[in-house]
Amino acid sequence: MRKEATMLRPTHNGDRYELTSPTVMPKAAGFLWNQQMMIQITCRGFATAQFMQPEPAKYAHAPNIEAKTFMQPEQNYYAHHPGRFVYIKDEETGQLFSAPYEPVRSQADRYVFSVGKSDVAWAVEQNGLRVEMVMGLPTHDVAELWTIKLTNLSGRPRRVSVTPYFPIGFMSWMNQSAEWSEDLVGVVASSVTPYQKASEYFKNKYIKDKTYFICETRPDSWEANQQTFEGEGGLHNPSGLQQPGLSCGDARYETPTAAVQYRLSLNAGDEREYRFMFGPAYDEAEVRSMRDRYLSKAAFARTAAEYAAYQDRGRGCLRIETPDKDLDNFVNNWLPRQVYYHGDVNRLTTDPQTRNYLQDNMGMNYIKPDVARRAFLTAVAQQEANGSMPDGILLSEGAELKYINQIPHTDHCVWLPVTLDVYLAETGDYGLLKERVRTPNGDSFTVFERFSRAMDWLLRARDDRGLSYIAQGDWCDPMNMVGYKGRGVSGWLTLATAYALNLWSTVCEKEGRPDLAKIYSAGAQECNDAVNEHLWDGDWFARGITDDDVVFGIKKDPEGRIWLNPQTWAMLSGAASSAQIEKMLPQVDSQLSTPYGVLMFAPPYTKMREDVGRVTQKAIGSAENGAVYNHAGVFYIYSLYELGGQQDRAYTLLRQLLPGPSDADYRQRGQLPIYIPNYYRGAWKEFPRTAGRSSQLFNTGTVSWAYRCFVEGLCGLRGDPEGLVINPQLPSSWSAIKVTRLFRGATFQLDIRRADVAQVTVKHGNRILPEARVTNIKEGETYQLSVLVPE
Amino acid sequence: MRKEATMLRPTHNGDRYELTSPTVMPKAAGFLWNQQMMIQITCRGFATAQFMQPEPAKYAHAPNIEAKTFMQPEQNYYAHHPGRFVYIKDEETGQLFSAPYEPVRSQADRYVFSVGKSDVAWAVEQNGLRVEMVMGLPTHDVAELWTIKLTNLSGRPRRVSVTPYFPIGFMSWMNQSAEWSEDLVGVVASSVTPYQKASEYFKNKYIKDKTYFICETRPDSWEANQQTFEGEGGLHNPSGLQQPGLSCGDARYETPTAAVQYRLSLNAGDEREYRFMFGPAYDEAEVRSMRDRYLSKAAFARTAAEYAAYQDRGRGCLRIETPDKDLDNFVNNWLPRQVYYHGDVNRLTTDPQTRNYLQDNMGMNYIKPDVARRAFLTAVAQQEANGSMPDGILLSEGAELKYINQIPHTDHCVWLPVTLDVYLAETGDYGLLKERVRTPNGDSFTVFERFSRAMDWLLRARDDRGLSYIAQGDWCDPMNMVGYKGRGVSGWLTLATAYALNLWSTVCEKEGRPDLAKIYSAGAQECNDAVNEHLWDGDWFARGITDDDVVFGIKKDPEGRIWLNPQTWAMLSGAASSAQIEKMLPQVDSQLSTPYGVLMFAPPYTKMREDVGRVTQKAIGSAENGAVYNHAGVFYIYSLYELGGQQDRAYTLLRQLLPGPSDADYRQRGQLPIYIPNYYRGAWKEFPRTAGRSSQLFNTGTVSWAYRCFVEGLCGLRGDPEGLVINPQLPSSWSAIKVTRLFRGATFQLDIRRADVAQVTVKHGNRILPEARVTNIKEGETYQLSVLVPE
Repeated sequence: MRKEATMLRPTHNGDRYELTSPTVMPKAAGFLWNQQMMIQITCRGFATAQFMQPEPAKYAHAPNIEAKTFMQPEQNYYAHHPGRFVYIKDEETGQLFSAPYEPVRSQADRYVFSVGKSDVAWAVEQNGLRVEMVMGLPTHDVAELWTIKLTNLSGRPRRVSVTPYFPIGFMSWMNQSAEWSEDLVGVVASSVTPYQKASEYFKNKYIKDKTYFICETRPDSWEANQQTFEGEGGLHNPSGLQQPGLSCGDARYETPTAAVQYRLSLNAGDEREYRFMFGPAYDEAEVRSMRDRYLSKAAFARTAAEYAAYQDRGRGCLRIETPDKDLDNFVNNWLPRQVYYHGDVNRLTTDPQTRNYLQDNMGMNYIKPDVARRAFLTAVAQQEANGSMPDGILLSEGAELKYINQIPHTDHCVWLPVTLDVYLAETGDYGLLKERVRTPNGDSFTVFERFSRAMDWLLRARDDRGLSYIAQGDWCDPMNMVGYKGRGVSGWLTLATAYALNLWSTVCEKEGRPDLAKIYSAGAQECNDAVNEHLWDGDWFARGITDDDVVFGIKKDPEGRIWLNPQTWAMLSGAASSAQIEKMLPQVDSQLSTPYGVLMFAPPYTKMREDVGRVTQKAIGSAENGAVYNHAGVFYIYSLYELGGQQDRAYTLLRQLLPGPSDADYRQRGQLPIYIPNYYRGAWKEFPRTAGRSSQLFNTGTVSWAYRCFVEGLCGLRGDPEGLVINPQLPSSWSAIKVTRLFRGATFQLDIRRADVAQVTVKHGNRILPEARVTNIKEGETYQLSVLVPE
Repeated sequence: MRKEATMLRPTHNGDRYELTSPTVMPKAAGFLWNQQMMIQITCRGFATAQFMQPEPAKYAHAPNIEAKTFMQPEQNYYAHHPGRFVYIKDEETGQLFSAPYEPVRSQADRYVFSVGKSDVAWAVEQNGLRVEMVMGLPTHDVAELWTIKLTNLSGRPRRVSVTPYFPIGFMSWMNQSAEWSEDLVGVVASSVTPYQKASEYFKNKYIKDKTYFICETRPDSWEANQQTFEGEGGLHNPSGLQQPGLSCGDARYETPTAAVQYRLSLNAGDEREYRFMFGPAYDEAEVRSMRDRYLSKAAFARTAAEYAAYQDRGRGCLRIETPDKDLDNFVNNWLPRQVYYHGDVNRLTTDPQTRNYLQDNMGMNYIKPDVARRAFLTAVAQQEANGSMPDGILLSEGAELKYINQIPHTDHCVWLPVTLDVYLAETGDYGLLKERVRTPNGDSFTVFERFSRAMDWLLRARDDRGLSYIAQGDWCDPMNMVGYKGRGVSGWLTLATAYALNLWSTVCEKEGRPDLAKIYSAGAQECNDAVNEHLWDGDWFARGITDDDVVFGIKKDPEGRIWLNPQTWAMLSGAASSAQIEKMLPQVDSQLSTPYGVLMFAPPYTKMREDVGRVTQKAIGSAENGAVYNHAGVFYIYSLYELGGQQDRAYTLLRQLLPGPSDADYRQRGQLPIYIPNYYRGAWKEFPRTAGRSSQLFNTGTVSWAYRCFVEGLCGLRGDPEGLVINPQLPSSWSAIKVTRLFRGATFQLDIRRADVAQVTVKHGNRILPEARVTNIKEGETYQLSVLVPE
């Protein structure tokens, strides 16, 4: 029986995060990706990996027939969950342990889980032996590159066996087998992706249905059959390790696995280092070519350097030095990495939701604006003839709309001007608007015209009252029954429409179309007026009105009484007057704030309300039902920065996006601060035991907005058509920060401090600028700026 | 580390089968069902259960999101596979074991797994304690009824804890939780079946999304949260058992489970008996009513008696006493039970394949012919306007064709006369043919007319050569690419068409329509001629001709050279002359026979052949690829009995349908002889290690034919319009058997023995009958017959 591990917070070590216990935050994980694959691996050794061919697929499987589904939050691990393990056995005493921790789960003398930006690593010491494991990825191919190193720390000769164990799982009911390849020096497992219609055969024909595990160094024995290896001893104490060597068996319509064993005699201080590759392949020739390309010490080193360079290209446009070192580490290293992930691989789907695609690429403006530019062109090239945007953007040939993208949502057009706003601010590239784009339905318009058509559609998709129809959903709130009969409306969407129209109106003005500007700003006003007339509930805005004319998200609702999004967007859209805002903010504070962030709504539903639908079917504490849904949280934070004078509230909320800094908070959230998850568990008042837990899912529209809040809000460094506007909003507890900002090819180094000034004052060299704004920016130049902000 | 268990064969004990080790045949299982549910549970305690609402659903789930799929053969078990366990811990010494065997897997002093027709039971003795577990089902409701009894055998006082553990698993990504109900005295787990479209909500609204585990006796503590219970100790050594009691926790969007603990002080010889129920429910009121109805000692006893009576209604029409006692047990107890299962619940699907539905009900003719009669009416009421039969028969409102039933197969009409043949032989009820049946498309015909229309469709669905099109499949061989372009033809189907036409022609004659009889028998002749012209390969018949005019299943094919079905049906249809049969049979013997039965085809494919399709994608040793596919096997056996003079070959093959009698054979097949599985693993020559393994799937069209072979073939007791024809075909090693046959309401008791007679000679009382046939049968009468068969 093991002792409860000491409770330890993770520590950052340079740009790595380290955790010294596998039991305090059992789901804490690192993740790596390239444009073809993604892997998330926990401190305990359980892994979830997928690759594109072109739809997401797996090469290491669950032990049963797993459902094909979208990426799920809060995955549950279980004994036979796919993982990457190595068993270390003292062949004299019989003592057995495993690294990283699963499946033997014995307590190490020393344990470090170390997550870097371009690798994930462990060091585990037990029984006088040190095991070091490192996992890296190639930049372009699909494979895991593993180094496993064993060191004899015991000061005496030892006889040990080292048995890497990479379960392959249930590959296919149609066919599965595995055998040793002498030639490839590894296990090759084969399967056939099941199909029934003849037409599917041709679709599946070139799928990579093999999984291989190959070794740089030939092992002494191996096993390809899970049952033979695990036997009656089971995964935590395999029968296969109770023999003098593995039995070198195959799997025939049995569950494949890959175990290889090295039997060693080590002198005191001896080390052995092994390299392995694990991944999918079409055929043995492909395995051979992967082996030739990667499986050597030199190739591993070269590949690691290339991959680090790839990661470095995503380092973002902002470096900060503040009194909050954890935050610095996050903003300088991890947040832009997460933004880059979204922009670079679009969550590894072939049909990203349109709102996600646009917002993920909104973040890319701060990293690679040319990628964001192409994304706008890709998106509007799929605009419908009536001006609306489809539910998802298809990114590869043969892709189709899946899962939630088959459900009609009405908000997609909104995101065009909202995300364009960032593109124009970062690049000043109004030329994009003049590009001409043809859609498959044959129409041909400029980007400018397409955006106007999208705005026209939003204006039309409203009822007699001027409120926007919701259909089976707007945004991410899964309110699929508010308007499924075609009459229900969304308060939030009406406000978001107003905000989008206002932004677009400004662009029209700038583009010399005051006529259009006027139409759209009038439309925005109409939307705002309609919301004020029908949805102002006295102290906050309601969420919507159902098909049957029931207003909801109001005081008299015992559940789902107040929703965050309508308040946020009423501030952004201009619908909320100062007097209204003064009423709203305290309500958000008192009803929605928690130690883990702002709730999406409260109180959570405990039972079904058919006119709201799916969200109310989620029991308390589940995904969206009253969760700290971070995407809504960052909208709110952004709106606070836009409002101004809210820097303390905004900073508190920004900080809550991350676990920590207290030990208890880390433990409760159960996640390393290397990404923002899509949500933290809600129902804080109802079920404090589970509230705050991270979903562990790093796919989220949150991150581009969070980065925007740091860049444009906290640091106050936002572009306009001619230059860079400077308006930092430091929390009152900070007296100074240093910032490096890359902007339009120039580097800005800012020393920002509080001073007794009436307004933000910027000094460039010895010159005080006439306004807090730098224009005539020269590419390649470095600007050293002293910025004084009012006390 | 545990010793290899002694190798023991299962033994029959009355009508039960007993196994005294959980490791010799780890997948050996019992199964129970009623019209709403089915459960298969292994000797080790792993269970697979489903119930109908109306589509198949689960109340105990895998630990991850499992795919919804048709019932899979050869399911792989893994640590967290759903199971039913009880932990027994000595609270003084800390010694822990579990019954049935999983998850602790310690070696018992005595172990018995005992499978009855109406319950499944275990007795496990270890550490001086005996645990007895019994599972039963109600006849009409969905629930498992568990009795767990503990006896102190140690001769001294003991302090022990008894902890039944019923994992509930990952219920739903949309919602899952579980908590203790004081009122219901048990754990109630809740979830919501996921949906995205609003329309699905209404479909799912009344789904039983709760799982309950309730106790007759209030436990001392409980736990509803899997992670809390298992902890770092894991399933095999749960952390929850290392405390003085369970922690009485709940699950909130965490994996639910049900553990309850009783802490006992037992004197020498003391016993404690507990009763539990496990199952799905819509709401707590339903749990309450199930509790009230079933959860008491008296109600368990009453329910067990009712269930035994239900099983007894499926005991069939045949009792035999032969020199082969294992066979007697199977034919008298288990085979009719499996036939009854198929006919009574249609494999628990709402859209059985038409061929399965008709054949499963063919078996029902021997048990409840009125059910078979209704099945014909149900089936032909779904006939297409063009006379063809759909791919599946819809049995409930809202049912739809799923999985393989969405793939066009061309054989369904064949099964109408083939299965009617048995109905008419058993009942003599030609009145069925006069029933008028209206289909949803509005047409209205008698059953006779509908059968004729189906035969006309078969005649039309042939090419210029007179060979039957195969489309994406005929029968069960998954040859989905032979004819997907619309030109490929099936040799087997052409022969099956001929056989069907001949049978139907006989019925037409009997019904006074010689004109039609002539048309159909001429059609049959045409089919037979076409096959002889295009598909006779010199020593056997080819399987078909692809879209691109490639004949396959012929001598020059290195893989898939000879197929069993065309040989069988050429004998049934009359296509094969005696000279041809003399060539074919030795080829079947030498190329297809194995110790585990006849292969569906040989040699198995090792690589893809696009013109044959899916079957060639199944690697060696997998499901259909060169398997001992028992459905094809029993067709062959039936054809041998029809041919006559093949009683030894036929008996050998019948015997191979079952595991045993040798220990090695039991072990290799890995199944108790309580049902015939759909296949035994093939590739006997290529991979002897795995050849012969049972699929463990008891859904199969095999059983009605197997029963028919015993009734009409071996015992030779087949009806004709006026009476019962007697023509036993005993294997040469037998000199006598006794048979009881129920037929048209009368009981026939036959004493059959070899004698020096020229032909079968039947004596009724003292009277020798003029021919081996009893006519003028009187309902309720018992006929004692002495039958002499030639040496």
